[in-house]
Amino acid sequence: MSASLTTTFDIEFPLFAFSHCRDVVAAVSRNGGFGVLGAVELTPEELRVELDWIVAHTNGRPFGLDLIVPNKVEGRGEQISDEAMIARIPDEHREFAAAVLDAQGIDAGDLDERRKGQLTFHHNVSGDKTDAMLAVAAEYPIALLVNALGVPPPEMFDFARRHNIKVGALVGTVNHALNQARAGVDVLIAAGGEAGGHCGAVSTMVLIPEVCRALHQHNLEVPVLAAGGIATGEQMAAAMAMGAEGAWCGSVWLTTVEAETTPTVKAKMLQASASDTVRAKSRTGKPSRQLRSVWTDAWERVDAPAPLPMPLQGLVSEPALKKVDAAAAAGHRGAEALATYWVGQAVGLMNEERSVADVMMEFKNEYLEAFQRVERFLVGVGE
Amino acid sequence: MSASLTTTFDIEFPLFAFSHCRDVVAAVSRNGGFGVLGAVELTPEELRVELDWIVAHTNGRPFGLDLIVPNKVEGRGEQISDEAMIARIPDEHREFAAAVLDAQGIDAGDLDERRKGQLTFHHNVSGDKTDAMLAVAAEYPIALLVNALGVPPPEMFDFARRHNIKVGALVGTVNHALNQARAGVDVLIAAGGEAGGHCGAVSTMVLIPEVCRALHQHNLEVPVLAAGGIATGEQMAAAMAMGAEGAWCGSVWLTTVEAETTPTVKAKMLQASASDTVRAKSRTGKPSRQLRSVWTDAWERVDAPAPLPMPLQGLVSEPALKKVDAAAAAGHRGAEALATYWVGQAVGLMNEERSVADVMMEFKNEYLEAFQRVERFLVGVGE
Repeated sequence: MSASLTTTFDIEFPLFAFSHCRDVVAAVSRNGGFGVLGAVELTPEELRVELDWIVAHTNGRPFGLDLIVPNKVEGRGEQISDEAMIARIPDEHREFAAAVLDAQGIDAGDLDERRKGQLTFHHNVSGDKTDAMLAVAAEYPIALLVNALGVPPPEMFDFARRHNIKVGALVGTVNHALNQARAGVDVLIAAGGEAGGHCGAVSTMVLIPEVCRALHQHNLEVPVLAAGGIATGEQMAAAMAMGAEGAWCGSVWLTTVEAETTPTVKAKMLQASASDTVRAKSRTGKPSRQLRSVWTDAWERVDAPAPLPMPLQGLVSEPALKKVDAAAAAGHRGAEALATYWVGQAVGLMNEERSVADVMMEFKNEYLEAFQRVERFLVGVGE
Repeated sequence: MSASLTTTFDIEFPLFAFSHCRDVVAAVSRNGGFGVLGAVELTPEELRVELDWIVAHTNGRPFGLDLIVPNKVEGRGEQISDEAMIARIPDEHREFAAAVLDAQGIDAGDLDERRKGQLTFHHNVSGDKTDAMLAVAAEYPIALLVNALGVPPPEMFDFARRHNIKVGALVGTVNHALNQARAGVDVLIAAGGEAGGHCGAVSTMVLIPEVCRALHQHNLEVPVLAAGGIATGEQMAAAMAMGAEGAWCGSVWLTTVEAETTPTVKAKMLQASASDTVRAKSRTGKPSRQLRSVWTDAWERVDAPAPLPMPLQGLVSEPALKKVDAAAAAGHRGAEALATYWVGQAVGLMNEERSVADVMMEFKNEYLEAFQRVERFLVGVGE
């Protein structure tokens, strides 16, 4: 694929936005970028509602859909009831989570009851509902289908080819990138370890040139989107300098006016520096980067239980953190201290609430300024 | 300081090279960059020998000197004998190090004896020898004096001002950068967590714009060198795009023809990907990034003793690893598996042995190509 991504996707500016919030997805696409809806927390019925809304609010501009179908998941391929899955959580983990909430004055008595409402993620990542999700997706003009963990399963490729949809995949190492390129993905999203959510350990600054060089050496002409830490136009220019064809950003949208981020977490993010995140398995069972809080600090303690495999660890953390969010919204101080969400080190560059349109405009201005800075030093290379 | 670093230091290309190897330092300065000698392992007498050689081999081109005078060190300010310092190492650490060597078939019986030769680093980082080192430095045309950990002590500032030498400091967070700028450093080296050797946790991609923006907001006009993960010209262009005035590289020189890296470690580095490093306290007592090996893996095990404070942990690791290097040089397979050295994730971009002059030439070519890539996307920002 030698055409630029702006041509392939008929967009103005190769800024791709990952968001669970339909308002952000639509606003990015309306403003010349490419919005991608993260759908792992949605049932097929909920997905339909979100896609209806997005189609009605993008003025015909293109958008994408991101599912997570990882290769290794607890209970994958087993017929296992929701109750049996919940029963697999060890008492040690239940009790530790409850104790962390108790210590901040939050009653944790109903966490087991709340776990029953948290199985959507499980059904999606286990692949149980992949066919149903794709059946809904087939009814909408989706231009890009992304799998966030591992090589997309064959049914995802087949579906995409049949519907003329491009397939993207997130990678965190050069070997994963080569495997995905050979498997046939159309767009590689190379995500550095500074990214929010699930991430590897290699930094964006190294991963982008390492992946671009390796693809070139192996004659694999797959365009690369740079992800991980990028929240400004000068960073996007830096990524393009290193061979990326565009940027894929998630964190930067979390503090926009349009985002559904809770007021407590949004305020914390606007205050945070890049040092205020932690990469840990304690939220989902796989390493993911989150805003540091009393909750994440607790799971870093030496007496904390070792994280369970996905999706069990999420059944420990999500009900607790949903309860925390509700209490924080009501002004509970302990809950405010516990509140957290996935975010990358780019949080240090997110210092004021802005509209999505303003973020996009600033990206363009900063890109131009960055170009001029690179140009200023050309004399040193003999130009 | 608003002049560019090329003007300030009278160099052609703002590529700064940190190396413990005088050949690399001199070759970088001769080829239009700026070499900086890492002197923490040297006695004042050894420093004199190295500086004599560098002056004789740089054709009058400028160079710098890097010392480590950290703020927190075990035994700092105490009058403590070498024997007493060695005696502070717990048996658990002696025995663990010996067991790791034993398991690879290396006799570890003489490690205690070997520790006595490892006190130079201790005397340097404890500040005991700072005056003596600076007295030697005063006799040479040093253009930049760098402190690698923490705010340079007042005697270093006084000395530099008296001798018209610029002062540089490495920083890993935005707060450290602001503190150093307020303390009066002339050049900030902002080093991301992907860097080799001592490093923080914030990535270069985020740290550079975060530091540059914070300095600007506080009206602190201190030029920033970008460090951490940079081994190519497109990464240097990326750093300049984000506001850096140049790059500071250490790892890339380790696989040059001129480097003193052992053949075993050099061969491992040329094969390694960016995933083959680990950031751990097990070598010096502070987090430092190294090539993964059987040695570093052992110290990551759950049964490994917790790292001691600097410089005690170095008295555990250095004699063992010096012994490993000697055995590896003699073809011992177990020693080859144990051998390691500090290196950043940039190791994934170091795939062939080249001369320093070739590395510098390629940096310039890659910088120009990177500029052209950034230019190609300008149409997307309305230019």
